[in-house]
This record gives sequence, structure tokens and C-alpha cells, in this order.
Amino acid sequence: MTPIISNVELCKLASGDFVSLQVYKFIGEKRGKKVYIQANLHGSEIVGNAVIHQLIEYLSTLEPNQITGEIWLVPVCNPLGINQRHHVFSTGRFSSYDGKNWNRIFWDYEKECLDLSEFARSQLNKKPEIIRKNYLEKIYLAWQQQLEKINQPSSIPLAEQYRYRLQSLCLDADYVIDIHSSSNQGIDYLFCFQGSEESAKYFLFEYGILMTEYEGEAFDEAFLKPWLALEKELANLGKVIKFDLESWTLELGTGMQINPLSVVKGVKGIKNYLAYKNVLSAKDELQTESIKLVNKNKLISYHAPTGGMIQNRVALGTKVRTGERLYQLLSFNKHQKLPEVINVYAETDGLIFDLSTNQSVNQGEYVLDLLND
Amino acid sequence: MTPIISNVELCKLASGDFVSLQVYKFIGEKRGKKVYIQANLHGSEIVGNAVIHQLIEYLSTLEPNQITGEIWLVPVCNPLGINQRHHVFSTGRFSSYDGKNWNRIFWDYEKECLDLSEFARSQLNKKPEIIRKNYLEKIYLAWQQQLEKINQPSSIPLAEQYRYRLQSLCLDADYVIDIHSSSNQGIDYLFCFQGSEESAKYFLFEYGILMTEYEGEAFDEAFLKPWLALEKELANLGKVIKFDLESWTLELGTGMQINPLSVVKGVKGIKNYLAYKNVLSAKDELQTESIKLVNKNKLISYHAPTGGMIQNRVALGTKVRTGERLYQLLSFNKHQKLPEVINVYAETDGLIFDLSTNQSVNQGEYVLDLLND
Amino acid sequence: MTPIISNVELCKLASGDFVSLQVYKFIGEKRGKKVYIQANLHGSEIVGNAVIHQLIEYLSTLEPNQITGEIWLVPVCNPLGINQRHHVFSTGRFSSYDGKNWNRIFWDYEKECLDLSEFARSQLNKKPEIIRKNYLEKIYLAWQQQLEKINQPSSIPLAEQYRYRLQSLCLDADYVIDIHSSSNQGIDYLFCFQGSEESAKYFLFEYGILMTEYEGEAFDEAFLKPWLALEKELANLGKVIKFDLESWTLELGTGMQINPLSVVKGVKGIKNYLAYKNVLSAKDELQTESIKLVNKNKLISYHAPTGGMIQNRVALGTKVRTGERLYQLLSFNKHQKLPEVINVYAETDGLIFDLSTNQSVNQGEYVLDLLND
Amino acid sequence: MTPIISNVELCKLASGDFVSLQVYKFIGEKRGKKVYIQANLHGSEIVGNAVIHQLIEYLSTLEPNQITGEIWLVPVCNPLGINQRHHVFSTGRFSSYDGKNWNRIFWDYEKECLDLSEFARSQLNKKPEIIRKNYLEKIYLAWQQQLEKINQPSSIPLAEQYRYRLQSLCLDADYVIDIHSSSNQGIDYLFCFQGSEESAKYFLFEYGILMTEYEGEAFDEAFLKPWLALEKELANLGKVIKFDLESWTLELGTGMQINPLSVVKGVKGIKNYLAYKNVLSAKDELQTESIKLVNKNKLISYHAPTGGMIQNRVALGTKVRTGERLYQLLSFNKHQKLPEVINVYAETDGLIFDLSTNQSVNQGEYVLDLLND
Repeated sequence: MTPIISNVELCKLASGDFVSLQVYKFIGEKRGKKVYIQANLHGSEIVGNAVIHQLIEYLSTLEPNQITGEIWLVPVCNPLGINQRHHVFSTGRFSSYDGKNWNRIFWDYEKECLDLSEFARSQLNKKPEIIRKNYLEKIYLAWQQQLEKINQPSSIPLAEQYRYRLQSLCLDADYVIDIHSSSNQGIDYLFCFQGSEESAKYFLFEYGILMTEYEGEAFDEAFLKPWLALEKELANLGKVIKFDLESWTLELGTGMQINPLSVVKGVKGIKNYLAYKNVLSAKDELQTESIKLVNKNKLISYHAPTGGMIQNRVALGTKVRTGERLYQLLSFNKHQKLPEVINVYAETDGLIFDLSTNQSVNQGEYVLDLLND
Repeated sequence: MTPIISNVELCKLASGDFVSLQVYKFIGEKRGKKVYIQANLHGSEIVGNAVIHQLIEYLSTLEPNQITGEIWLVPVCNPLGINQRHHVFSTGRFSSYDGKNWNRIFWDYEKECLDLSEFARSQLNKKPEIIRKNYLEKIYLAWQQQLEKINQPSSIPLAEQYRYRLQSLCLDADYVIDIHSSSNQGIDYLFCFQGSEESAKYFLFEYGILMTEYEGEAFDEAFLKPWLALEKELANLGKVIKFDLESWTLELGTGMQINPLSVVKGVKGIKNYLAYKNVLSAKDELQTESIKLVNKNKLISYHAPTGGMIQNRVALGTKVRTGERLYQLLSFNKHQKLPEVINVYAETDGLIFDLSTNQSVNQGEYVLDLLND
Repeated sequence: MTPIISNVELCKLASGDFVSLQVYKFIGEKRGKKVYIQANLHGSEIVGNAVIHQLIEYLSTLEPNQITGEIWLVPVCNPLGINQRHHVFSTGRFSSYDGKNWNRIFWDYEKECLDLSEFARSQLNKKPEIIRKNYLEKIYLAWQQQLEKINQPSSIPLAEQYRYRLQSLCLDADYVIDIHSSSNQGIDYLFCFQGSEESAKYFLFEYGILMTEYEGEAFDEAFLKPWLALEKELANLGKVIKFDLESWTLELGTGMQINPLSVVKGVKGIKNYLAYKNVLSAKDELQTESIKLVNKNKLISYHAPTGGMIQNRVALGTKVRTGERLYQLLSFNKHQKLPEVINVYAETDGLIFDLSTNQSVNQGEYVLDLLND
Repeated sequence: MTPIISNVELCKLASGDFVSLQVYKFIGEKRGKKVYIQANLHGSEIVGNAVIHQLIEYLSTLEPNQITGEIWLVPVCNPLGINQRHHVFSTGRFSSYDGKNWNRIFWDYEKECLDLSEFARSQLNKKPEIIRKNYLEKIYLAWQQQLEKINQPSSIPLAEQYRYRLQSLCLDADYVIDIHSSSNQGIDYLFCFQGSEESAKYFLFEYGILMTEYEGEAFDEAFLKPWLALEKELANLGKVIKFDLESWTLELGTGMQINPLSVVKGVKGIKNYLAYKNVLSAKDELQTESIKLVNKNKLISYHAPTGGMIQNRVALGTKVRTGERLYQLLSFNKHQKLPEVINVYAETDGLIFDLSTNQSVNQGEYVLDLLND
């Protein structure tokens, strides 16, 4: 089958040129869930574009009756972040205009839904699918005001105009998958919301980080948080329901790279997950892998205790013990002294989860992440 | 009198060079309040350095008995932000390393003081000066943990190491003055906390913005917010006291400039305020000016509705009426059409409070602030 | 009359979006000279876009018989440079990818025309218009090889692909006008090639800089230099001819601004020049102004002798005498000393020609230009 | 033995902080040649700091009688370039202030020595060591004028002040070694001047690039070019001499990394070279390796033919044949089309010499270097 391909203008630049999004939609014969998959929200995290490309190729081989519901795919979803360069590097993790992290700008309806309790009470006698429909309408109503603001003479900042275009594509989705990677050098894993642990297994990753607090400005949180809030509010009123809505951030390896193994892992995991959710008819037996979910606060970042050059660092994926040396810092000075070699040791046991791409560090710059699993 | 000049090492850079703070302390004969004044926290906001220089020159002419308490002055308080360049411009409003706004990184004790109610209850029978002393000790105890984190192998990020050094200078201050300017082109005004309206008059500015919400990560808020929280907690328990602690952000004109008139205004206002607070003995009659305090939400930012070039914009300080033209946007295109001139009109009456330095705008970029006073 | 508007694709970005040029062509009834006018080659130098817009509006009011020859106008001629931001500033004087100054990348045919003497000898008996035609053909032949390189698998760097598209628009022009401004804060003036002094008067500027050496990589030089080389070669062989080809860089005021007076001056000067060249029929009497042409080496740049803050600087356009104070540098230190005020004096008499927008300077950064006229 | 460690102030920053160089000097008992070794001129090319550190450790184990002449070592030789960050990356290949490549700023005496012929003629009857002494005096005389310029009120730009401090350390050196690496991902090799082929072998590298043209603004060229010019001038006058002066740029692997194998190779090669030059007494047998020297024009850079994501690229160090696929470009669009996969093939046989660290490319950005050896 062939996707419907549509174009969404994002913004006009000072030069009069436009940047746009392009959405690939595979619409199944039978109605069902809406899956939304995007990649490259942070400028350097490009691997997901290859994953989406392979998914597009795969989905194109299917017949319309092999998809239930619809799958929307948005590669290169942040043109401004993606095209930004400083020297040869993709520095678009944050905007060079205002410093805003492109994944901390999103609209969290929970924050402006001041009448959530009232709404929840009004839905107590309704069926989940009706509540879903009603709340979504409520969300769209609030969303409409964002558009009105854009169209006022004072308009709204670039990042908010951007989020409007992007979130408009998935407010009504059921499953959202946002493909990232490390900005530096990382392993493959996913971020898992509480309550989605069972589904997490179907992505077939070895590791997952279990989120413990939701601030709502990340893309995955902005999508799911308002629904979690409603579930909680209803539960407080004695009505326990769980919407079949899920939001995932996949982290596939290293920044500025397309690691073929990470691509394989991403494609395989997403296909398996979609089969599990019955969006794809599972020709193959469904697989699960016993993912190790670790609380986010078990991820410990090491920062340079002073300025210098990192040498003899442990490799990515190594398991270390408390007190083992993690790296050396070759530190120079301007006080007529010899250079110094500082050994930095592990505070805890753990897995080397992420490494800085840059082995030159000013004091306080990032060196590595250790997962105290 | 001569100031005591001391040096605080901030951080070692990758090259082995250090950047430091330098503190000028004028210690009066009689003990009293501690005043802390800094400038240039944002890289381009340089005007306060000249203000501090003139204050140092003025204070140097005084005798020790003309100061009650002590005045600490820290010009060029953010070396990393100040020395950062992109082309000829001072872009250090945010760090080029992580995008963090240098004035949204500070430590707000309120957020980690989980036993505030308990503490407040324990102080109900105590005198304000004792409560002040006890709470300050409590703050220092928590602060000590920040230092311990710095000294662990995993250490903490650059911005947090920096804030540790900077806030250490003023945790025990009574009056904090942080001198900023617009990043763009602005008028002279101050930010005023609720409850400090009376003191605000002594800075002799025409305009002030009355803060309505405190997030705690700005320098002025990080200093005062924990004390406001304690006042509130005590009030809840029936004990209404107001500590004589104040925190001010002065905004003196335009970025990357030292406007002599703004310098004069800043110096005059600070001297008058210090006389009002009896830190300086007021040779001259104290002055007040009837400052116009306007709520922060009355400040409306205009963003470019599309990409283009701003022309024929109203001047800084102009009063406009609803519907008057604020500026034209000369917008080009790549669709074989003539350039378009878009008129943008005021949504409300107000004062033109701030103008973008850059008249080239991508869609959604900042154009001007209008104060709907 | 209505311009023909055409679009030239420049390059595809990583995100799949394109940036383009748009060319406005006013083709007169009678054949004649080709005028090429562009603006905003350096990202911050936006004023020329307003000049071109007003020229488009003016030319649109004319009848085809009021133009002899054709006028091509290219506003916003460097999208990548124009849309680049660091904080709010337009930093696209050089590419953030490779540091290349966008006006030092152009193709100078002289450098690769190794058989110029031979060619000149072959043209000795020909009429100037034939020589012009023959040399232009020769240029196009070499140019064709650039296109072939672009189309090879190894292709060529971004800047060279860009220059190919831009220079292709004007290789066959007769008069080229490239509208710039200061990156900082400057007066209105033009750059004049030797031999074009007479024409310079018709732009009606007070000042001009007479170029003394041509390196060929600036846009104006890349256009004219190969023809000057041919003239010289022919003259060496005893055939003195002067092609009616001219190349101009206009400098209209201050960066990131559209100063209305500079726009008026630019529009008026260009219209007058085009009338002088009989491209426009001069309804009004032609004007000239006695422009003061000063050799480029009379322009003396002052750089900060140490790091600090510039204060009390003389104003743009001031005439100063040797030994007069130009500015003060308020210089801080980290050696427990008081701040220092350093007075910097004029080495020569002259006109304050340009001022740094940024009054914060690291040692060796630009402060001002003085024209020792 | 212990090095003499001295400090050279480079420049004061706007904040009042200084950056400096630190020089480690090992002075042998017997007088002899002066060796100058530096590292990290380009911000991301950090590997040489570890090489220098290991050389310092090695030299510290020697007795003064084991060194003939002196060895000066300058690690982290470009603080401004080294400490510069955009996101986590070391972008200091060029200055963020003016875009200048830090290795294209140096002072080439040949360009201002207008009386070289005259000088050469005056030395025809002199012995090489006297000519060396006389020419060096002449160089120092010219150099003195640079210092005078620095000290004038107008001073000189930052980059020129920097080069003054750096080149002052080695104008009188005999052997200069500048340790670089790829900005991207490269193999280990060296740059060899014509005439130094024999010495090149002693660095024990497999590959070398033979320089064919000298522009004089790179550090290695700025040191040697004036002497090559003098040799040529003397040869023209019939006096053929070759000064024992050599200048080397070593390229050790990948940017932002300290690859232990590259460090070993660098240290071993430099020690062997210094033994060959009798600066170090060769305890071990001297080694040579048959280096493959290839002309610089055999290095072919591939640039992205359009924007997109690089995938399936051949590995560093691979030998490819004409017509083999080098990489795929996964290219997206905004024209409602499917993503495209473009295969890019080798134009010639060769060795994959260097790879872009970033696999996301705008059109015309760098992809790889192939050495057509």
C-alpha cells in the first residue's frame, strides 16, 4: 500500500524560505488505533530517520487489510534543529536563538485544565470511550486558543508556533513513539511511563528507564500526562479506568550517527509493539524480552571535577564496581606546575550507560552516565 | 576608605586557565546590614559594571564611619557568559554548552525545605532576629550539602558549581541588587517583589514591574523566596512578621551598551536606596519618586507573525493606542510573488517598553514589548 | 510594468527543506545594459532589502519604454546567512559551519585564466564589443566546469555550490551593485574601483573608499577583476580600451537595522546612477555630488588593548584630532586591584567612520574605525 | 631532570580574567638544537596533549646529559579555541568571533621581506651558520614591529596578538612539531615539506601528505617558509645550502578523542625523530619505516550532493576501487514524495582517509576524504 503524504508548513524564515513537516500516513482498511511516530526532534539524534525510512518501506509492502487503524510517520520532525550547525556538529539540541531545549517546549494540557475535577465528576457515569471522546474535545477546545494566539498581532514565540504544528498531528493519537538517541554515545533503551511496564517488553530492549516524575514539557509527557491526570482524578472519585494510550521515547545509540544495529533494534521493536497492539497483524509469533526497568534516579551523571582532558575511560556498556576507576583527567595548569593526572572512581556499582563524545572538558562538563541497576 | 578585595575561583577550563570572581567589600565602622550588588550576570548586560565602578569610586571617598554595615560589590559576575562571543555579539544570556539561561539556574531553598511548617512552628515564640538567625543556619546546613556534592567523584554540572560560588556570597545578605539591562533595547526600570513597593520608590525610577509569581530560579527570587515562604508559614500560624530583606533587579537600558544616562540613574538610585536603608548616611535629603508599578502580566511581547524585515517601527518609549501601527514587516517569498508589506497594529494601549535590536526576524522571533499600563 | 519573477534553488538542507533565491527582472523595451543588484549577502546587513523593495515599487510604476536594458534585483540573496541566529543576533557574516566569510568565497576567473596573454593577443584587431563577447564566452566555458564538478560524486563544498548559483546570475551583467552595511554601526558610503571615480559621483554619497588591491574573492571584485585583468593585458599589448563594466558595493549604515535615511540615500543614489547610465530615462535633472574618495589604507581600525568595557566613546561621524581621547576602557582584573580606566587616544586626525555595536571587549576585539581623510 | 616551567600571558578577557600559555623547557647539558612541540591549536584536536604529557614524563626521567640542545613543549596551546563550546562539542577550529581558522593566522616573514634578494646577495660569502644567525636577526627586527603595533593605541586584532605570543616561542627553533588530529575521524599521518622526505621516515607513520604549495598562514608553513625562500634565493645566486630546519604537522586520529594507539604512535615517533636528530641520545636502535608520501592533491574530499542522512558508509582505512559505493544518502523532501536513497560511488581508487563525525548533512557538507594513493 502507498502512504498518503502531506505537508505542514512550519514557519517562514527571514529570507522568505519556508521549512515544513512531511507526514506519511498509512491508513488501514479497518478503523482502529492511531499510531504516531516521529524522529529527530533533537538535531543530532538522526538514527530514527533511518528507522522510519525502513518502517515506510516495510509498511509499503503490506496490503491495506494488514493494518488496523492508522500509522503516521514524521521523520526529520524538527527542521530548524536538524539544519543547525556549529562547525561540523549538529548542535540543535537547543535553539541557538533562545537556548530552549527542543524537547522541553511542549504543551501540557493538565497545566491549564483548571476544571479537571469538575469535568471528572461530570463523566462518572460514562463509558471510557465516551470519556475519551469528551476529554479530547475539551483538549481541542483549549488547543484552539493556541491557534487564536498565533493569529493575533502579538502572535507567540517560534518554539510555541512549532509545538502547535507538531502536537496538532498527535493530540488524538493512541500510541506515540518519539525516537531519540544520546547526544553523546549511548546504549539502546527506552523511557517507560508508570503503568506501561507490561507493554514495554514488546519493544525487545534490554534496558528501560522508568520515569518517576512528569514535568510535562517533554514530547512524550505532554501527550500522556493530561490523560494520566484524568485517570487519577477519576480514581479519586472511585472510578478506576485505564485508557489504552501510551507514549514512548526510544533512545537508539549515539548522536550524529546511524548505527545499523540500533536501526535494526528500533525497527524490530516497533513492529513487534504494533503487532502486540494489533495495529499490524502479527504474521510472526509475538516476542517479548524481559526488559530491565530502572528508576530514573538510578542514573548518575558524572561531571568533570576540574578542567582537562579525559583519558583511559571505561567503555560504553561496561559493568563497574564501586571504587573502580572510571576515567583519568589529564589536567593542565598555568601556575608553573607539571600537568596532573586525576583518577575518578565509581561511587556505586553500575553499568556505563552513556559517554561524552568530547574528551575535552571544562570544569563541570558532562563525562558519563552510570546506571546503578 | 579602601575596599577589601577578595578573589573567588569559579572554575578551571579545559586549557588549564581559571576564571574567577572578584569581590569589593566596603566594611563600615558600625555593624549593620549587608548589601550585595552584582552586575553582568547575562553576558550582554554590561551597564551595571559602570554603575558598580562609580559606586566603588564613590564609596572610596567615604570614611568608615559613613557606612553602617557592609557593601559587597561584584562587577563582571559571570565570566563565562561575559566572554562568550558569536561574531561580534555578546550572546551569553544562555550558556552555549547547554542552553541554560544564566539567570534561571539558582538554588531556591524553599524547594528543598520540606520541614518548613515544622520549623515555623518551632519558632513561634522567638524574636524575629532569632528566627532570622535560626533559618539562616538551616539554609547554610542545606547549602553545605551542595558543596559535598561538588566534592564527590560525580560532582555537579558547571552551572550548579557556578551558582554555588555566586550564591555563597549573598546567602546572608540583607539587600540584594542585581543589575541587568535589556538584551535588546529597553528603558530603565526595576523588578519589585510584592511587599517591597514602599522601598521601590527610593530607586527613583519612573517604572517598575511588580512580580506576581516566583519560580525561584532567577537570582533575585532565589535569594528572597525562602524568606517569603517562611513569612507566609509563620503568618499561617498566626505570627505576622516581615523580615527586612529585599531583593531587586534593576534594568538599565540597552544590551551591549553603557548608556551614560542609565549609569547616572542607576548610581543615583542605589545611593538613595542605601541612604534610605541607613547603610549610607544621607548627606543629601532623601528623595523618592512616584514609581509606576505595573503587574508583570501587563507586559505584552510581540512576535513576528511571519519571517521578514522590520521597518517603520515606533520608537522606544512611545505611548501608543489600540489599533495604531507598531511596525511593518517587509516579507519576502520564494513563490514568484512580489514582496509583501504587513502592518502590525497594537492590540492594546501602552508604552513601547523594549525593542528587538535585530530588525531581521524569522517567524515567531521577538519584535517588541508593550507595557499596557 | 511588472517584473518577471523567477526562482533559483540553492540547496537542500538535511531536513529535506530547500532554500532558494528569487530574482525580480525588469526588462525594458529597448535592449541595452544589464544591471544586477543584490542585498543581504552578510546576514546582518539587511538595509538593502528595503532599498530593493522600494526600487521594485518604483520600477513597477514605469512603462517598458522607460527602461533601456534590464534590471535584475535579488533581495535576501543569502538565505543561510540571513536565517542564522545566535541569541537574537544575525551572525551570518561567516558560516557557522566552516567560518567562511560569505563575501570572501567568490570565483575570480582571473586566477584560473592561465592563457590570458594569449587570448589578449588574439583579440588585438577586434572591436571592444567583440572582445567583450569573446571573453564572456571564455568565462562561461570555465564556469561550465564548476557545474560539472557540482555534478560529480565528490561534488563541491556548500559555499562553492552557493557561489555558483549566485554568480551565474550576473556573469554577463554590465553594472553590479551589492548592497551591504556595517556589521556594527557605520556611516553611508561606497567602495569604488580605480577607474570608476567619475561614475562614483552619481551615487550621491559624501564618502567613498577607493580600493587599492583586489584579492578577487569578494563579490564586487570577482565580477570586475577578470575584466580589469584583460584591459591591463590589452594595454600591455598597446591596445587601450575600457569596458563599460562597473561593480559597486554600497555600505548603508548599521547592521541589523533598516535606517530610513540610509534607505532614502540608497534608493536615490541607485536611481540617479541608473539614469546616468541611461538605463532609466532621467525625468529629473541628473545630480552629482563631490564624493570624497579616500584610499582604503587610510581606514585605521582600533582594537581593544586589553579586555574590558568601552565607555565615553566619541560618536559616529565625529571629526577628531590626533591625541584626542577616542574612548575609555573600564578594565577589571582578578588580582585584588581596583578596576582601571584606560584612556585611548587618536593616533591621527580623522573621521569616526564605524563603531562596534558591542561595548564589551575581549583583548584585541574591534572598537572603532577612524578614517584618516 | 626537571623542566623549567614558564608562563606567557595571552590576553585579558572582557571579564578581567586572563588566559595564558605554559611552556615546559627541558634544557640539556650540551648546547644544540632547539625543538618546539605544541598541541591543540585547533580546539577539538586534543590528542597531542596526551602525547606531550607522556613526553614530559619521559623527559623527566632523563639526566641533563641525555639531552643535547633543548626541548620546549606547549600543550593546550590555544586556550580560546580549546575552551569554546557549542553544545557539548569543541568547535574551536575557527574563532566564533571572526570565523578565522586558528591555523591560518600566522605571520609569514617571506611576505614582508621585500629585500630578500639583496640580503641573499650580501650573504654569499658567509658560512651557513652565520647566514642563519643574520637572517634570524633580520626576522626578529621585523617581529619587533609587530610588538610595536600591539602597543600602539590602535593595537591589532586578537588573532594577531595571539600569534605574536605563540610564534615568539619558536622563531629561533630548529625543529617544530605541531600536533593535530582530524576534526572528524582520521587515520594517523603527517604533513611533510618538500626536502624533508628523508627525515619523515623517522616518525614511523605509514602515511604522509607531501605538501606542494605553501601559503604561509599555517603554523608549520609560517615557521619554515621564510627559510625555504632564503634557500631558494641563495640557490638562484649559485649558493646551494640547506638549513637543518624542519617543520612538521602530525595528525593523530580523531577529534575530541584521545585514542591510546594514536598517543603511542605519536610519542614513539617523536622520540625516534629526536634521537635521529641527536637531541636525545638513542639508547635503542634508531628505527625507520617506509612512509608512503602522497601529494596533497591526491586527497579528494567528497561533499554531500544534496541534504540528508549518511548511512552504510565504508569504514575508515578501507581501500576502495573506482565505482564502489562509498555511502548512501537517505534524503527527505517536502514535496509529497517518498524518501530517496542515493548511492554515491568512488570516482577513483583509494584509501578512506577521513570520515565526517556527523552523518547528518546539508547539501555541500563534508562526507569523507579519499586518498588516491
